[in-house]
Amino acid sequence: MNNLKHLKAGWGDSVIIEVVVHGPGIDLLTKGKTTQQEKIAGFTAMGITFVACENTIRERKIPKENIIPEAGFVKMGVGEIVMKQEQGWSYIKVGF
Amino acid sequence: MNNLKHLKAGWGDSVIIEVVVHGPGIDLLTKGKTTQQEKIAGFTAMGITFVACENTIRERKIPKENIIPEAGFVKMGVGEIVMKQEQGWSYIKVGF
Amino acid sequence: MNNLKHLKAGWGDSVIIEVVVHGPGIDLLTKGKTTQQEKIAGFTAMGITFVACENTIRERKIPKENIIPEAGFVKMGVGEIVMKQEQGWSYIKVGF
Repeated sequence: MNNLKHLKAGWGDSVIIEVVVHGPGIDLLTKGKTTQQEKIAGFTAMGITFVACENTIRERKIPKENIIPEAGFVKMGVGEIVMKQEQGWSYIKVGF
Repeated sequence: MNNLKHLKAGWGDSVIIEVVVHGPGIDLLTKGKTTQQEKIAGFTAMGITFVACENTIRERKIPKENIIPEAGFVKMGVGEIVMKQEQGWSYIKVGF
Repeated sequence: MNNLKHLKAGWGDSVIIEVVVHGPGIDLLTKGKTTQQEKIAGFTAMGITFVACENTIRERKIPKENIIPEAGFVKMGVGEIVMKQEQGWSYIKVGF
């Protein structure tokens, strides 16, 4: 979350950010587990996108409605990361 | 392993994957330590390449013959990752 | 540190390396906390650059003078990583 804050503080609207959440990180977007929903709501209001990996939630048997409404979905988190890099996006891995 | 499964399930033969294993992750490719050899064999049959870093095994005094036969070798794992990126490959870090 | 050693051993002066230290990793560059200052001094003598994220040290209330003299500073570690990738640098995440 600090990384996002800094990128927006430093670069404002000139940076486009998508946070791809997959694997054990999915708790970040899960109702009743995340401690960051308020911050995420603030970031989405600034234009940062959060997406949950559908493969992850299927495997962990997390119903889609348990994902916080601020987040969108991508079919495959790892594929999303590859595609974005192919399109020229930079990649930063945070968390575990 | 889930990431690999998803990439192949989603993209099939249109994705080329090399898994560079170095540092503490080397257990994944070490006989008697890995719990994933069967899955790795399945992935190599699908065309995914696993390579062990020779610097890592030398430093950890792991004889080459202790690496599972499904894996190949690269002289320097970190150099392999840089070179592949220079050639346009996308990078995803998994594990620790 | 092993990654750096290998890159320099394998590629010598043909590789340019900058180590961006941010978040909890900042201990690596903090006086009295780092156990690696001697190695870092050796690497900077070889031309490897170490930079501390100013956002990180401000948030952790680490005075600039507590950062070892071998290191430089960047305003925003995460921004530095993005910019370098935009300039064509490869990215490798190490540590936690």
